[in-house]
Amino acid sequence: MSIFSKIAAGEIPSYCCAADDEFYAFLDINPMAKGHTLVIPRREVDYIFDLEDDELARLHVFAARVARAIKKVIPCVKVGEAVLGLEVPHAHIHLIPMQSERDMLFSNPKLQLPAEEMQAVADAIRANFQG
Amino acid sequence: MSIFSKIAAGEIPSYCCAADDEFYAFLDINPMAKGHTLVIPRREVDYIFDLEDDELARLHVFAARVARAIKKVIPCVKVGEAVLGLEVPHAHIHLIPMQSERDMLFSNPKLQLPAEEMQAVADAIRANFQG
Repeated sequence: MSIFSKIAAGEIPSYCCAADDEFYAFLDINPMAKGHTLVIPRREVDYIFDLEDDELARLHVFAARVARAIKKVIPCVKVGEAVLGLEVPHAHIHLIPMQSERDMLFSNPKLQLPAEEMQAVADAIRANFQG
Repeated sequence: MSIFSKIAAGEIPSYCCAADDEFYAFLDINPMAKGHTLVIPRREVDYIFDLEDDELARLHVFAARVARAIKKVIPCVKVGEAVLGLEVPHAHIHLIPMQSERDMLFSNPKLQLPAEEMQAVADAIRANFQG
């Protein structure tokens, strides 16, 4: 079971931003920006392009809803999207509020936000999520 | 008309990797890696999360087919995906063959490949694209 499967199953705590039967969104614990969120399918598939067309399509529609909620909560120009996936073998989409394209550099130092602030951001995203 | 609309319409030449009535894929002219491809909807929409659910879903299914073709042509661990979009106001997905996650740093120096090599890569991706 991947670390992300454990998170989606609630076995490892996370700051949940949105969830349904098929997908789960939660705050990246080492965010590149406040509101940096990961979106995963609950089904454990390593490589995103190995997903079936229908599941891939639903994943991106779900991620778009999360992105729209993030944009309502975090002032930003756009929400950027990235899929790398060479570290955790469970497909995941990064959603990152951008002030500039430099905010999408994964070499940037990661933020450490207080737990109360992380919880407040996740709660606000969840409240704005249109499922 | 955006520069990408002109490319998709054939008014500006490009190294075409895949095309259908709705979407167009072509090599990034300043690639971060050999095989770096951009995928766009022909419809001119600035922000990817403003696309309707159905169009967004079809765009990602099309992009996944392009990514699978890239992986057949360019030896890589995975094809990474990124959407930034603060420079050209026409939604576009970057597909970038990765040897490591560092290959996804947009601060990396861009490659200059000879035209013949760009053409050969695009031709090979197009030949491997399952429409």
